[in-house]
Amino acid sequence: MTKIYLDNNATTPLAPTVAAKITEALGFWANPSSNNENAKLAASEIAEARRNLAKLFNTRPDSVIFTSGGTESNNWIIHSAISRAKNRISAAKKPHVITSCIEHPSILEPLKVREENGEIDVTYIAINPQTGQISPSTVLLAVRPETCLVTIMLANNETGVIQPIREIFREIRQKSIILHSDVAQGAGKLSIDLADLQADAITVVGHKFYGPRSGALVLGPEFESDLEPMIYGGGQEMGRRSGTENTPMIVGLGEAARIFLADGQQIENHLREIRDYFEQQLKIHLPTAAHLVHFQQSPRLPNTSSVAFFNYSPHSCDLVERAQTFSASTCAACHKNECSPVLIACGLNFATASKTVRFSFGRQTKKSEIDTVIQELVQLCM
Amino acid sequence: MTKIYLDNNATTPLAPTVAAKITEALGFWANPSSNNENAKLAASEIAEARRNLAKLFNTRPDSVIFTSGGTESNNWIIHSAISRAKNRISAAKKPHVITSCIEHPSILEPLKVREENGEIDVTYIAINPQTGQISPSTVLLAVRPETCLVTIMLANNETGVIQPIREIFREIRQKSIILHSDVAQGAGKLSIDLADLQADAITVVGHKFYGPRSGALVLGPEFESDLEPMIYGGGQEMGRRSGTENTPMIVGLGEAARIFLADGQQIENHLREIRDYFEQQLKIHLPTAAHLVHFQQSPRLPNTSSVAFFNYSPHSCDLVERAQTFSASTCAACHKNECSPVLIACGLNFATASKTVRFSFGRQTKKSEIDTVIQELVQLCM
Repeated sequence: MTKIYLDNNATTPLAPTVAAKITEALGFWANPSSNNENAKLAASEIAEARRNLAKLFNTRPDSVIFTSGGTESNNWIIHSAISRAKNRISAAKKPHVITSCIEHPSILEPLKVREENGEIDVTYIAINPQTGQISPSTVLLAVRPETCLVTIMLANNETGVIQPIREIFREIRQKSIILHSDVAQGAGKLSIDLADLQADAITVVGHKFYGPRSGALVLGPEFESDLEPMIYGGGQEMGRRSGTENTPMIVGLGEAARIFLADGQQIENHLREIRDYFEQQLKIHLPTAAHLVHFQQSPRLPNTSSVAFFNYSPHSCDLVERAQTFSASTCAACHKNECSPVLIACGLNFATASKTVRFSFGRQTKKSEIDTVIQELVQLCM
Repeated sequence: MTKIYLDNNATTPLAPTVAAKITEALGFWANPSSNNENAKLAASEIAEARRNLAKLFNTRPDSVIFTSGGTESNNWIIHSAISRAKNRISAAKKPHVITSCIEHPSILEPLKVREENGEIDVTYIAINPQTGQISPSTVLLAVRPETCLVTIMLANNETGVIQPIREIFREIRQKSIILHSDVAQGAGKLSIDLADLQADAITVVGHKFYGPRSGALVLGPEFESDLEPMIYGGGQEMGRRSGTENTPMIVGLGEAARIFLADGQQIENHLREIRDYFEQQLKIHLPTAAHLVHFQQSPRLPNTSSVAFFNYSPHSCDLVERAQTFSASTCAACHKNECSPVLIACGLNFATASKTVRFSFGRQTKKSEIDTVIQELVQLCM
């Protein structure tokens, strides 16, 4: 029996039309920079994908830069902001970056390495334990003359809590600071408007929204600065990211964008309906004291429930491993003495964090499947 | 009519079994780090691909690090060698890199940027105009105490000339210098043994040998140093290159490796036969003074002919554009006052370089197609 897949924040299957487009695009194998018929076809398919991404985030096609994935995009914007800052500020001072303590490792790790090297200073903004959110005023207070980058994720992969990016960025908009948001978890679940978000750049990850293992760095429509490349070479992607274009991956990402452009509201509604149904059913079938949905009152991704099961005596890793009907995640190494650092950073105590399971629903999740999952959860937790 | 494709050094079509494996692997969509059945399948397919790459280059599977492509691999080894050198040499001195002046832009551009920033010194080794090769003694003479990287391509994409990598690396092997070779043009055409080559690391590019738009950095079996990551995050690829694994691309690259493991000698023989037939037919049908095959006496890739057509009065770009039966390349921007910088660096004069066309044959090229191409070349050049 295949388990019901409730780990869509880790990765999603490919949408059938995405898989079909990728398979078709394996035939557009020419080098898009070459001068032959197949090359023109490849270039035109790439241009269409670029337009779809631009439309999805309400920006210009030439603001869409395809990358190998979110990890590259996040590393790149950090590299770029710091390189730019070094040209601007005096050598005696260090570039300064503001981020949150609940970012993805592809933000936290490159920052940590550079911080430990003595190359930069970093301020890690704390999370309000009542809301799971960052307060805009805290970010504003952290800004220094050397600040070159503010990078805050749109929505957290574990709690699903949506950060007030617009309010944060509106307050600190100024030419010398790049305002970046990793929207990996938001894209394909929420409508995201780059102008409205006031972001200079966002990180987009195909495989989080039924697209391929590739991504993009998408710039705001008014972002005029030069972006220092991290990967130099043949000058592809308007000189910003070299490397022969991965036509099938780009075409697949474009199709994932097109799907959400066409059906976004319906997708969001479905996810929310499933998630709300799950949380209602939990409430009906489990005693109030037996479980807690984290940050239920905060703005959240429509597909994510982060739930502590207090009556389940071992660690939540054990719960997830024992589950026969569903796959979900604990976002933590499976040791009894560990739990998710993100949940701790969001103010949960160890006991609660170590009993927490993340359910991330998908476009394909059905109510009947939720009934099955609830039934097993009740058995496991009673 | 589809033109006969003689531009296989730019990119190759996917081998049918590579396309089939990629399409199949679109179904292994789970995150290989997750704990579910599909994830285990994805991880096992990736492990098989890694073993195939390791076998192809005679190294250990854990020495194979998948990347988004050759451009990333080349940028990464430069980043890594320089980062490592900064920890070793005094801050008053600059890390020093030795390369050749005919490398791919993904080597030359990142070096140029760092050289212009004042971060490093670079020695560009000149090419012997008699042979198209680098002399090992020239490289040895360029080594300094601050040298941290020697990076020389195995075979040039334009001339096809194979460099004496083994002889160069054998002379200068020492712990503080990373010996790297971009084997993008050699892989899938020649058998490459990392131990025999004496290389610490090689850059591998899938789409140059019937694989996908992805690549690898492959380390020598005895390379023990730490490799400084360029892309940090979730710690994939043994902590060396983060980012959720692109399962279909990796599986496709593994299949491309498997094909050459199975049929390498036959493939090499076929390419050489076609190339030699082409050059023989040229000799038969064009007057000796009307054409010149560059570096015909040097060790060359089995599939590449770089040929100047002296009787064709306009620029070779024009010849390639007018050709009705075949696609080939001039490797130069198509302006009358430009020609390939690589050919000039190899000692050709402007008049000869600007009349040169690169023919790069493929596994699918047939003798009857060569006859067609020769016929048109004779018409164009008489």
